[in-house]
Amino acid sequence: MKILVSNIGSTSFKFRLLDMSSAALELASGGADRIGGAGGSLKLVIGGRTTRVAREFADHGQAIECVMSQLVAEGVLAGAAELDAVAFKAVVGGGAEPVCMVDDALLERMEYFAAIAPAHNPPYIAAMRMFRQALPQAALVAAFDDGFHATNPQRRRLYACPPAWAEQCGVKRYGYHGASHRYVASRLGELMPRAPRAISCHLGGSSSLCAIRDGESVATSMGLSPQSGLPQATRVGDFDAFGLKLMAEQTGRGMDDLLAELGGGAGLAGLSGTS
Amino acid sequence: MKILVSNIGSTSFKFRLLDMSSAALELASGGADRIGGAGGSLKLVIGGRTTRVAREFADHGQAIECVMSQLVAEGVLAGAAELDAVAFKAVVGGGAEPVCMVDDALLERMEYFAAIAPAHNPPYIAAMRMFRQALPQAALVAAFDDGFHATNPQRRRLYACPPAWAEQCGVKRYGYHGASHRYVASRLGELMPRAPRAISCHLGGSSSLCAIRDGESVATSMGLSPQSGLPQATRVGDFDAFGLKLMAEQTGRGMDDLLAELGGGAGLAGLSGTS
Repeated sequence: MKILVSNIGSTSFKFRLLDMSSAALELASGGADRIGGAGGSLKLVIGGRTTRVAREFADHGQAIECVMSQLVAEGVLAGAAELDAVAFKAVVGGGAEPVCMVDDALLERMEYFAAIAPAHNPPYIAAMRMFRQALPQAALVAAFDDGFHATNPQRRRLYACPPAWAEQCGVKRYGYHGASHRYVASRLGELMPRAPRAISCHLGGSSSLCAIRDGESVATSMGLSPQSGLPQATRVGDFDAFGLKLMAEQTGRGMDDLLAELGGGAGLAGLSGTS
Repeated sequence: MKILVSNIGSTSFKFRLLDMSSAALELASGGADRIGGAGGSLKLVIGGRTTRVAREFADHGQAIECVMSQLVAEGVLAGAAELDAVAFKAVVGGGAEPVCMVDDALLERMEYFAAIAPAHNPPYIAAMRMFRQALPQAALVAAFDDGFHATNPQRRRLYACPPAWAEQCGVKRYGYHGASHRYVASRLGELMPRAPRAISCHLGGSSSLCAIRDGESVATSMGLSPQSGLPQATRVGDFDAFGLKLMAEQTGRGMDDLLAELGGGAGLAGLSGTS
């Protein structure tokens, strides 16, 4: 059984190709970067040998097709049809099952939540649709980044907004980086079984904290959207929604335009005015 | 020197009349409640004697006129012209001097910030304009609720939004309830001089926390608007601005309408569906 595990960023596609038939064996890994821009490259690691070639990709579809044809050319796969499953480390499922099959209902759900994850959901949705069409025989499976925080108590899962906002529209604190925090919780349990309480710090272009008790998430810094919580590289982090009204009145800009700046031109890059 | 100190809520007007000529002496106190609605009353405390009469007020102007004429009728003031100053415990000055004279520039500033303090600034602005017209001889002085938090370090005063949002539009973390937290800090210094660190909890219809070190505010839970921080009685507390976009897409409602619900139909009342 061969599985392609994919991690899709706004301008990148990374993968691992695993053979699960006996012991899990990594057949290949690599990916494409700077998709949609100049200076991109394709990296492949096969049998411990790494090759990297300059290559530009117009979109994620081109990058994925290129990776698949290289895997066939290198003899790692007989053909794309040999893939039994493609797994996606997806971000915002808005309370979808933590691990689930990619079907029409899930894609609709992810499209609905693209409003709050403009940098995360659209490239995943595009890639999922592409794999669905190209590999109709393969099972597509998504693992969402909020599943680990389902153990947070209800009082930390809700905003103090009218319940209809949460129940009908999904406005809740989901939290993200679940795969990372889950791994920390799990390793900590192995290495320090007498340390039942910990704070896991996932720090990078996207950052969050997670309070862990007895291996479970009990609180996390991100809320509804991946823009919330700590300041991110280019995303704002916690922000007062009434600031939008002040900005709209002063500048005449609309809500969508202001949120787009908070979602891509803010955070540490926005504060510093550099990158 | 006679000073009227006023505290103006969305449906209330409270006052103390002080004679500062020798030792500060309270000549009278009291106020009006349920302004603009049914079942209102007027309360006066003069010389230790309390009277309360049922009385309805169409607006803050009527309530203030009624209080002033009662003070004259009771002989506490010879006339409104005897007042040397009126002091206002105002809320959102958006970085105005903590204590300042009420002039055109200040009223314009308060009107600008009414967008983020719809329950707080409009009644103060209306009352200030009324006193200005009715008592042209009196000095009007405003003390703002954010002044105590000016000692917070810069990293806690800013959101991670582009600097222009803060510099040109005033989108910063101001914090409120300064008069209350300042009093706690001051009394704590008298009662427990060896306890240089404390958390002051201002809990009520409107709630905030303040971290105090050596008598100064170093952090507070409210940010730009009085809707932020802890959940308030009817105001949302911290909320992810991207939730507005999700709600707008799902319901077709506009930003102003959604913010109005977060500012008056949310918080503990919104969550509970009661009051």
